[in-house]
Amino acid sequence: MPQTPKTAAKKRPIPTRRSPVVKGAKTPAPAHRGAEDDIKITALALAPGKLSPEMEAYFKKCEEKLGFVPNVLKAFAFDDAKLQAFVDYRQELVQNAANLTKLEIEMIATVVSSQNRCFYCITAHGNAVRQLGDPMLGEMMVMNYRAARLNKRQRAMLDFAVKLTQTPWEVEEEDRERLRRAGFNDRDIWDIASVAAFYNMTNRLASATDMRPNSVYHGQAR
Amino acid sequence: MPQTPKTAAKKRPIPTRRSPVVKGAKTPAPAHRGAEDDIKITALALAPGKLSPEMEAYFKKCEEKLGFVPNVLKAFAFDDAKLQAFVDYRQELVQNAANLTKLEIEMIATVVSSQNRCFYCITAHGNAVRQLGDPMLGEMMVMNYRAARLNKRQRAMLDFAVKLTQTPWEVEEEDRERLRRAGFNDRDIWDIASVAAFYNMTNRLASATDMRPNSVYHGQAR
Amino acid sequence: MPQTPKTAAKKRPIPTRRSPVVKGAKTPAPAHRGAEDDIKITALALAPGKLSPEMEAYFKKCEEKLGFVPNVLKAFAFDDAKLQAFVDYRQELVQNAANLTKLEIEMIATVVSSQNRCFYCITAHGNAVRQLGDPMLGEMMVMNYRAARLNKRQRAMLDFAVKLTQTPWEVEEEDRERLRRAGFNDRDIWDIASVAAFYNMTNRLASATDMRPNSVYHGQAR
Amino acid sequence: MPQTPKTAAKKRPIPTRRSPVVKGAKTPAPAHRGAEDDIKITALALAPGKLSPEMEAYFKKCEEKLGFVPNVLKAFAFDDAKLQAFVDYRQELVQNAANLTKLEIEMIATVVSSQNRCFYCITAHGNAVRQLGDPMLGEMMVMNYRAARLNKRQRAMLDFAVKLTQTPWEVEEEDRERLRRAGFNDRDIWDIASVAAFYNMTNRLASATDMRPNSVYHGQAR
Amino acid sequence: MPQTPKTAAKKRPIPTRRSPVVKGAKTPAPAHRGAEDDIKITALALAPGKLSPEMEAYFKKCEEKLGFVPNVLKAFAFDDAKLQAFVDYRQELVQNAANLTKLEIEMIATVVSSQNRCFYCITAHGNAVRQLGDPMLGEMMVMNYRAARLNKRQRAMLDFAVKLTQTPWEVEEEDRERLRRAGFNDRDIWDIASVAAFYNMTNRLASATDMRPNSVYHGQAR
Amino acid sequence: MPQTPKTAAKKRPIPTRRSPVVKGAKTPAPAHRGAEDDIKITALALAPGKLSPEMEAYFKKCEEKLGFVPNVLKAFAFDDAKLQAFVDYRQELVQNAANLTKLEIEMIATVVSSQNRCFYCITAHGNAVRQLGDPMLGEMMVMNYRAARLNKRQRAMLDFAVKLTQTPWEVEEEDRERLRRAGFNDRDIWDIASVAAFYNMTNRLASATDMRPNSVYHGQAR
Repeated sequence: MPQTPKTAAKKRPIPTRRSPVVKGAKTPAPAHRGAEDDIKITALALAPGKLSPEMEAYFKKCEEKLGFVPNVLKAFAFDDAKLQAFVDYRQELVQNAANLTKLEIEMIATVVSSQNRCFYCITAHGNAVRQLGDPMLGEMMVMNYRAARLNKRQRAMLDFAVKLTQTPWEVEEEDRERLRRAGFNDRDIWDIASVAAFYNMTNRLASATDMRPNSVYHGQAR
Repeated sequence: MPQTPKTAAKKRPIPTRRSPVVKGAKTPAPAHRGAEDDIKITALALAPGKLSPEMEAYFKKCEEKLGFVPNVLKAFAFDDAKLQAFVDYRQELVQNAANLTKLEIEMIATVVSSQNRCFYCITAHGNAVRQLGDPMLGEMMVMNYRAARLNKRQRAMLDFAVKLTQTPWEVEEEDRERLRRAGFNDRDIWDIASVAAFYNMTNRLASATDMRPNSVYHGQAR
Repeated sequence: MPQTPKTAAKKRPIPTRRSPVVKGAKTPAPAHRGAEDDIKITALALAPGKLSPEMEAYFKKCEEKLGFVPNVLKAFAFDDAKLQAFVDYRQELVQNAANLTKLEIEMIATVVSSQNRCFYCITAHGNAVRQLGDPMLGEMMVMNYRAARLNKRQRAMLDFAVKLTQTPWEVEEEDRERLRRAGFNDRDIWDIASVAAFYNMTNRLASATDMRPNSVYHGQAR
Repeated sequence: MPQTPKTAAKKRPIPTRRSPVVKGAKTPAPAHRGAEDDIKITALALAPGKLSPEMEAYFKKCEEKLGFVPNVLKAFAFDDAKLQAFVDYRQELVQNAANLTKLEIEMIATVVSSQNRCFYCITAHGNAVRQLGDPMLGEMMVMNYRAARLNKRQRAMLDFAVKLTQTPWEVEEEDRERLRRAGFNDRDIWDIASVAAFYNMTNRLASATDMRPNSVYHGQAR
Repeated sequence: MPQTPKTAAKKRPIPTRRSPVVKGAKTPAPAHRGAEDDIKITALALAPGKLSPEMEAYFKKCEEKLGFVPNVLKAFAFDDAKLQAFVDYRQELVQNAANLTKLEIEMIATVVSSQNRCFYCITAHGNAVRQLGDPMLGEMMVMNYRAARLNKRQRAMLDFAVKLTQTPWEVEEEDRERLRRAGFNDRDIWDIASVAAFYNMTNRLASATDMRPNSVYHGQAR
Repeated sequence: MPQTPKTAAKKRPIPTRRSPVVKGAKTPAPAHRGAEDDIKITALALAPGKLSPEMEAYFKKCEEKLGFVPNVLKAFAFDDAKLQAFVDYRQELVQNAANLTKLEIEMIATVVSSQNRCFYCITAHGNAVRQLGDPMLGEMMVMNYRAARLNKRQRAMLDFAVKLTQTPWEVEEEDRERLRRAGFNDRDIWDIASVAAFYNMTNRLASATDMRPNSVYHGQAR
């Protein structure tokens, strides 16, 4: 398929906090064991590339808002264009869901990652569910989402995401109908699918490269 | 995670042909049955949005080079920003692989899609393998890649992609080592993983929405 | 169990065309890559045996009607008695289905073979579905039959065949009832089961021996 | 594919005993529960057809040699031509294996049937292994063939049959090589595949129709 | 978790017969092949320990009532405290089910063991079903419990046990409700779960150690 | 099998602390969401029974040492004899492993429970790994043990436990040999198998009853 022509400048909204840094709180001292994960981020020897000013600014914003740059971004940083495309894609196809809450997006991300047993993604998104929802909800998304007492809407959403993860070839109109009966419209179905599909991608990229989550994630919001 | 700040204009290479239109050849008349697929592209009722000039130009280029706009792009076109992000991501994370040939990329795409039994993606990428390789190679990628008499490099590449598709949680250093022994370097491992991961995403997006391939694909390069 | 005593001469109907040779049309020149498949038919070194006059006549008829002898018959030809038994069994247990159309038989054959990812059988029977039905129907049977918009009868038939292929131990009265509700009688259930079971056998015989389909199949009826 | 022309009379060897009737021994009185299985043989209402003289003679021979007609034959008897084709096929493709012993054929049949959890076939062939081998060997073939202390040849044979049953698409040259290293030649590989494939067929035919084994099997050779 | 303090003497009911020794009947002469299983009970070299008087008495009672000591007890006998705990646990959590019959307990044990293909446990519990129920029921529990014509209660009980064995993570309130609708109360649900869970444990202990069943089991109650 | 005769008083070692209560530290206030789990422990309505003095003392000891009584014990407390048998069995078959460290036992427990996606057991044993090992090790045991950089001994131990959990029927001498090569003796193999088997039991008991972990577990040792 053709490659895209030169693009005009993009408009992107101001970054928003997802995992807030508690001011004044002592940042969890990186434990000796975690330190390794914060240094050797993947199993691949890929020399870090030069960041564009835009991505440099983005990393700086991460440091300010989160207290760290998520390792997945550092892993992509060996090639600035890939990094940029990844950040954009995630913003448009995941974060810009019309009616899903941030918590719901993270619930899908965690449950999909749990099916795929991806250490990086379960860690990062389990953390987000703990922060946006509550600690126990995060644990249940990691371990077995069926243990959570979800409302009909969220249960249908996660059942769809899990089926799409495990046996996408069996997803049919009946499955979309179940989402509609649970209150979702067609745009929502796109968004749920888009989020679940995205994490099926990142899970595999992380597993293929033994990507390691920032050690700070483990202790937050417990 | 923060959203990215406003971005400067991107440099994108001129599109290249993948599935060339043979000039003077009669475009396969869309059979009655295929016509439906060319009109109702997904099971979701999403009103087409307004395309940016950039994406409009891109669609025009598709028409010129391929003779049609791939339905996956039309499916994304209900939201121009998503479309743009998808096109960019695919270009950077799939098409810009350092050392994989276009044929190899399409082989991975077809084999992954075959594992996930995705009608859209098997059709589109099986077509590409037929065009870039040969018709029978395309068939074997669709049906069972183990039937093809591949060289060690390509077999290792596809074995990795299939394992990453089916049991990503079991991918370990030993699997990366097998790729290295087959002649791939760490950048190649990233690229193979990135391509395989990408199609694990699109397979699920297509299956979730019952995305239909352009009917013209079926008859080409047989 | 006892072996059968000497048998009286069989009455067999005149062969009927399934994949017609279009007179005057140029037989697709066997591509170089396919040529190999037309010469070395299996991975086993089995010297061709002497054909009985009956089987010789049958091979001649294949040449006349189809333009070639299907490789599966050549594969069996190392032992004339096996060949004869195979041909007879297929005729009685597959082709003589009371109420299934030829197309339906080939749909079952293709879908079962797709579940078992058998290169030979998907190729040969996918070809037959394209010829008896239409090209796109053939593709969907090969890739994912759920993508086809089948009527209730054919969907029930294929669902049964797939369950019987994947988890035969879970087939119970409820499954037979579903077929009856879709309009099949008990003789039809036998026939559907018989066809699905037969291709579960040939799939395995082909996979065990790396049986290669005639290269001519690939380009037909596209 | 063409149907076969009228065939000349077949030469068939005299039936041989597989499950001998011990003269003078009291035939196990069919227990009340078993009686049902001996009367209602399948879940399908198929009126028994008229047997050809040849098949009538064959049934008589079964009665003499075994003390009963195996229910699978009665199940086929609604259509004499199907019955005949089944009996012939089994004789040529299963019983006429060049170098496999009768016991080995039955071991494959039982192990394949155990994978497919087919009540009819496990019962009938487990019985045969008990008779031709010994009772405990029969039990292990039924329950888990890995528990048996088999020689290298038989273990390789059964491993191949099980792989061919479960994941035929993964059978490759390496698997054939393992058989060759265990002492089998290419004709033997055909035969092992042919036997395993045949029971993958009958297992499914039996499961699809809820075929019931003759009750007498259960008590024999314990 | 803390270990338990010293315990007071337990009250245990008098042992009851499960697999009665028919007086005057000739104990099946251990066949040569079975003899091995009666001597080398597991693949582990664990020196038999000294039995407590209590366990010694228990073994004696087994000899009297059954005619032999089940090999699983001998396997545990390398450590008297483990043996005692196993015997107690089985008595309390399996044998003391409130409303399940002994036959039902053994049906669960056999069906669970069949799912796990455990040679030891299928043998021992299949024997018990034959003795407490009837021979053919035992065979069906071993081969495929779906082949048995069970009443609604027993079918629900076994379906639950099988699901709990294969995909425990998918067991939810709906599954418990199905048991309640079939006539079970909450105490029964505990007991069914407890029995199914127990044999999921012993199956694995037996498989891990290649535990061999007493050869006498094979011939009993056929 | 016979039930055991009356038993003499048992000698049990003094309980040891596993999850120590930090004196002076504020016990984590049960969050509102966790509170539910601490009150309604299972989905079954089973009236709490009267505890024996011995078990009452044991519960008191739990309160002192851990700060709470683990819910699994409360779940068993509807029947004192079952509770006692469970506690004894766990002590003898799990805690009294000869050469496995407490950490290793908990690693097996967590990894097995993760395979079975058991919310209760992953929570309780993941907590123990965090306490006995370190927080990140606990997380990796929960999410994907392959992500941990384990030494050869512990990796072999967990690989064995996982295989025994997923496909016990495929465990053979080769698997035991691998453990021996990693430094384990036959007694250790028994213990590893015994621990893995035990948690395969408790996972199923917990899943069958929707057993809820004490809410205090979630926040500890992060």
